[in-house]
Amino acid sequence: MEQRASQSATGYISAGQEFTRDTQYIADRIVADVDAVRSAPTLESDKVGHIGGGLTAGAEAWPVEAGRYRLVAARACPWANRAIIVRRLLGLEDAISLGTPGPTHDMRSWTFDLDDDEKDPVLRTHWLMENYLRRFPGYPRGITVPAIVDVPTGAVVTNDYPQITLDFSTEWTQFHRDGAPDLLPEPLREEMHEVTTRIFTEVNNGVYRCGFAGSQDAYDSAYDRLFTALDWLEERLTDRRYLMGETITEVDVRLFTTLVRFDPVYHGHFKCNRNKLSEFPALWAYARDLFQTPGFGDTVDFSQIKDHYYIVHADVNPTGIVPKGPVLNEWLTAHRREDLGGSPFGDGTAPGPVRAEERVTAGHNPLVDAQG
Amino acid sequence: MEQRASQSATGYISAGQEFTRDTQYIADRIVADVDAVRSAPTLESDKVGHIGGGLTAGAEAWPVEAGRYRLVAARACPWANRAIIVRRLLGLEDAISLGTPGPTHDMRSWTFDLDDDEKDPVLRTHWLMENYLRRFPGYPRGITVPAIVDVPTGAVVTNDYPQITLDFSTEWTQFHRDGAPDLLPEPLREEMHEVTTRIFTEVNNGVYRCGFAGSQDAYDSAYDRLFTALDWLEERLTDRRYLMGETITEVDVRLFTTLVRFDPVYHGHFKCNRNKLSEFPALWAYARDLFQTPGFGDTVDFSQIKDHYYIVHADVNPTGIVPKGPVLNEWLTAHRREDLGGSPFGDGTAPGPVRAEERVTAGHNPLVDAQG
Repeated sequence: MEQRASQSATGYISAGQEFTRDTQYIADRIVADVDAVRSAPTLESDKVGHIGGGLTAGAEAWPVEAGRYRLVAARACPWANRAIIVRRLLGLEDAISLGTPGPTHDMRSWTFDLDDDEKDPVLRTHWLMENYLRRFPGYPRGITVPAIVDVPTGAVVTNDYPQITLDFSTEWTQFHRDGAPDLLPEPLREEMHEVTTRIFTEVNNGVYRCGFAGSQDAYDSAYDRLFTALDWLEERLTDRRYLMGETITEVDVRLFTTLVRFDPVYHGHFKCNRNKLSEFPALWAYARDLFQTPGFGDTVDFSQIKDHYYIVHADVNPTGIVPKGPVLNEWLTAHRREDLGGSPFGDGTAPGPVRAEERVTAGHNPLVDAQG
Repeated sequence: MEQRASQSATGYISAGQEFTRDTQYIADRIVADVDAVRSAPTLESDKVGHIGGGLTAGAEAWPVEAGRYRLVAARACPWANRAIIVRRLLGLEDAISLGTPGPTHDMRSWTFDLDDDEKDPVLRTHWLMENYLRRFPGYPRGITVPAIVDVPTGAVVTNDYPQITLDFSTEWTQFHRDGAPDLLPEPLREEMHEVTTRIFTEVNNGVYRCGFAGSQDAYDSAYDRLFTALDWLEERLTDRRYLMGETITEVDVRLFTTLVRFDPVYHGHFKCNRNKLSEFPALWAYARDLFQTPGFGDTVDFSQIKDHYYIVHADVNPTGIVPKGPVLNEWLTAHRREDLGGSPFGDGTAPGPVRAEERVTAGHNPLVDAQG
């Protein structure tokens, strides 16, 4: 039933071309005050999301409502991993349920192949594409995760990943858990926008620019851009516990999901190999600090991450063989970042244990295994 | 003129298969006493070479003679790199000249594409295959390096790489430089045979078994075999300066040529990624110690090494893009292996500087660049 990308004539690399990410999404928003958002000025998309404000042209506003929406987020995907982390940090598990497609989608779509009957237990679809088609028959763009689906109609509401997590923080406040951290502190937002923009273009997307480069020149300059940015982050994190200072913010979530995939995938598969993450002293300690913080490492499925990249990108890795390395136990080693001070959740508290039905599969993550 | 392997329908991986190295070579030998070797008992090939003794069935003996033979050895190739190192350690440069094909051979053959007119200046051939055909018209096996060519006839004498270096040590003694080291100390030979056999099957060939595995199962067991052997070597080298103890032997040469390619190529391209060489404390210090020893690092061309693997193995890396990493300056850092005692060349001395016409291209090796 499941087709693999390797059986298709198309691929991820365009010969001779630099990789360019499609950044057009279904830009609807789920908001606390539908009327206010509809009447606010139209926004131009800047690819890193909006805090408050209105809608981009043509987009709709949907009302926040507990139990109505389902977050579809493959653990393999870094953009989806963001949403899983923020949902958990804010304690939105009861308000927004979680569907998790498997790591190796076919050319049609991500699929719910890990679930019983290979169907999402709530949406009852096999291909996530079905939920896109219920929204827009003939939907012509990529079937991406994360996507939020309106459960009553089975239609995708939004797949605008930068906006999804911002709205979790700012629009879903009435459903946040007690002690939920403020991931978007008002006084820091202007600087956060600068930092997150650079992290998006140079790092989150920068690794793909290396891996999907269609020429040696495109790769060479992508590599230089990536490591220039990582050197900047290494310096920034040398005397700062978190990217914005004392507490965890959304910017840390966005960097973490790329860092946690760096040595298992990007270093080899995408040729981001000036050095491993584990060879950057500050970045590696920072990444381990976050990994060991509730809400981060406990969302990571290393097996699904490796399977996804090495099997789906058949034009990069035609054998489909998935490397056994690297060793992962070092993610649990002491990082000494507490010496820099700070308080991970500010005035808030850490989230509790992952609920049983959302735990990462045994054997796929040393942290989860250590917690037994 | 030059064809690339990517233009061919054939490849390096056989789907579903474990990689098996073809170990049949032209097993002629160049020896000091032709009559004695011809009349000695026939030997069965054991793939790791013979010290003294006779010939394998069907092989011929040729006389040692200064100026008569040319060693053809691509710097990219680990098996050829051995012969370049041993020739230099023993000071055989005047007795045996050196031809160096470029890194990216076509499906036909290694080629002399780096030389003027793309022909070897002595042999006047473009394809090394031409020299194989002068020996055996219709030669059906792989056109491999190292090969030793009889200059007067242009015919390949031998490509039996394990035997070539052993005979450099034992048959070419009258042409060794003053101070040439004994790379095959008589009292150690039995243990050397055991160690070198395990290094050949598990490490030298083990990395290829990972990279050319035709199934996930074949890869998984190849990876386990490789790292089991590297852990054994790590332990062996923790309290021993060299593999056999106090001085450099042929076994160190054989391990070095794989280690020096490990982080630049095998770790990513062949998925040997449990950890980098630089993450093994003893092995990494040992490799740097050898690299910084005259005769080892000064023979290494990292650019040719990377070009060879990443461009020639089009079924592993179909884009042909060559990674920029890893950083190489760390090969020059202090290794502190002197603290273990020992004397690299025993009663002998280090070889002098590389002669001008044999120097590695500027920008291809940090050691050569540092030496100016």
